[in-house]
Amino acid sequence: MMSYHLGWVDKNGEPETATLQDRKHGQLLMLVAASAGGHSADALPYAISVELLYNFFLIHEDVQNANTERNKRPTVWWSWGPAQAINAGDGIHAMSRVSIFEQLNQKIEEINFSNIASALETLDNATLNICEGAYLDISYQERATVSVEEIIGVARKHGSLLGVTAELGAIAAGASAQVASDLYRFGHALGTAKHLNMDVRALWPIDGNDRTEVQRGRLQSKKKSLATSHAIENGTPNSRRRLGEIFMKRVLDPADIEAVTAILEETESKKFCEERIGELFQEATQALDVAGFSQSDNDSLLKSAKIIVESD
Amino acid sequence: MMSYHLGWVDKNGEPETATLQDRKHGQLLMLVAASAGGHSADALPYAISVELLYNFFLIHEDVQNANTERNKRPTVWWSWGPAQAINAGDGIHAMSRVSIFEQLNQKIEEINFSNIASALETLDNATLNICEGAYLDISYQERATVSVEEIIGVARKHGSLLGVTAELGAIAAGASAQVASDLYRFGHALGTAKHLNMDVRALWPIDGNDRTEVQRGRLQSKKKSLATSHAIENGTPNSRRRLGEIFMKRVLDPADIEAVTAILEETESKKFCEERIGELFQEATQALDVAGFSQSDNDSLLKSAKIIVESD
Repeated sequence: MMSYHLGWVDKNGEPETATLQDRKHGQLLMLVAASAGGHSADALPYAISVELLYNFFLIHEDVQNANTERNKRPTVWWSWGPAQAINAGDGIHAMSRVSIFEQLNQKIEEINFSNIASALETLDNATLNICEGAYLDISYQERATVSVEEIIGVARKHGSLLGVTAELGAIAAGASAQVASDLYRFGHALGTAKHLNMDVRALWPIDGNDRTEVQRGRLQSKKKSLATSHAIENGTPNSRRRLGEIFMKRVLDPADIEAVTAILEETESKKFCEERIGELFQEATQALDVAGFSQSDNDSLLKSAKIIVESD
Repeated sequence: MMSYHLGWVDKNGEPETATLQDRKHGQLLMLVAASAGGHSADALPYAISVELLYNFFLIHEDVQNANTERNKRPTVWWSWGPAQAINAGDGIHAMSRVSIFEQLNQKIEEINFSNIASALETLDNATLNICEGAYLDISYQERATVSVEEIIGVARKHGSLLGVTAELGAIAAGASAQVASDLYRFGHALGTAKHLNMDVRALWPIDGNDRTEVQRGRLQSKKKSLATSHAIENGTPNSRRRLGEIFMKRVLDPADIEAVTAILEETESKKFCEERIGELFQEATQALDVAGFSQSDNDSLLKSAKIIVESD
């Protein structure tokens, strides 16, 4: 099930090359480590670790949001049932540290225990932060009114994950605590922007594309977004009342979603989101500037960052 | 939700003292550490860790088996829905290592990095082993025939958990790798016996008590047990056919469960289970003997072990 989810095999365990998945988190970590003067061999265990952590969350999120499809294939729970999917996610969560522990097999004098312990603690703290964001995200489904600030609290889900990704790249390279912390701020702003942008694209698919199953899942289950919160805070009494009525329903149907996006056009909420995402990207850029990498390294990192913000 | 599950607060977060839960895993770990000459302050972080790990599994198991009640209170998923329960379990999984990381706050020369790293790796390996057992347990629900050996494979769920519990007690006390491994074998045999005995008590509640919700959940969802596997392997063609027919149903109702236990009486499968559990307890006793603790420490540990095997 883990291999299936990661796109390596089909449902029967046969090798499958049809579904190519990106590994943006691992790539960003490797890029940060290289920029901080690290060796790729030292960074790889951490890159594997954040990729597995990310995928553990996806497997569980698909159960939680009842997503039947991801990456154009049936999800794990849809193929094997929710009980197996919960268990497969728990297993990949435990496995996310295996690559880090492999470093303990080196000669004892070559093991950087302090680095390893600090990486493990950083990972768990990020996981807890992500769970806190998920808790809020689910709680807000049943509330009509969620403030802009509350939505930023939810966006810590991706903020923490990308924060720890960039930070671990710095830790793997043996960078100073200050640089590691700059990189955390870089990744956190980036991840927050990514989260907000995922919601923008779910509401307004690019080029009039159909929504993916994951995008539909978030909207139908009444997950709140920066755009809906902006509209609630800034709309006319009439648009606020109409939004409130829609969010009173148990689940939303396609017509409800169209009604929501129509209201959000009136309140210019898409523009507000794009501006906020732009500000967060600026914050990320500034945090990166402070870290003191070369200009060409910064350029590569920002290029990757842009791809991440625009990806699902 | 975590505090609620642990029996400290009610659903509204108000302190609740009504529900007293035992902490048998943590207690066993502390007892092992004391027997191995360790200080309780050194063992406590690990005891907290195994208790949280155990409770993370319970929160998820309640979702997976659709248990509405545990410890005479509504379960987390029944109170807050499956999405929140999956997330609360993930959070408590991440938190299960927090107490171990707290040791990193000591003076650097006092930190036993190698102990900490080895404890963390041991925990993750046990978690993976538990997930493998859970995978088999769920897979076997839809099979009519599961062998006795396959059931022992499922019982590694509790075998691994109690194995790591006893092993970490030894690690915390600074015992040798050999003693740690003896203690793992002690705990593993003990946990395997506990798992098999839980199934025996679900089938034949003590003193004609009503089955708990958790016991009913396992039976109704067609979880296989040592007794049913023994009956399939050793029953008459007639009893095997009747068992097979019952296990073809989607879910079992109370009458089906009574029919199953009636067949298991004919095949003397309860006696077979009790003998196997007795053998496992002997295995545990022998592993403990090898570890070389004092006779009075061994007596205390075996007393605790007996309580664990007889508990849910």
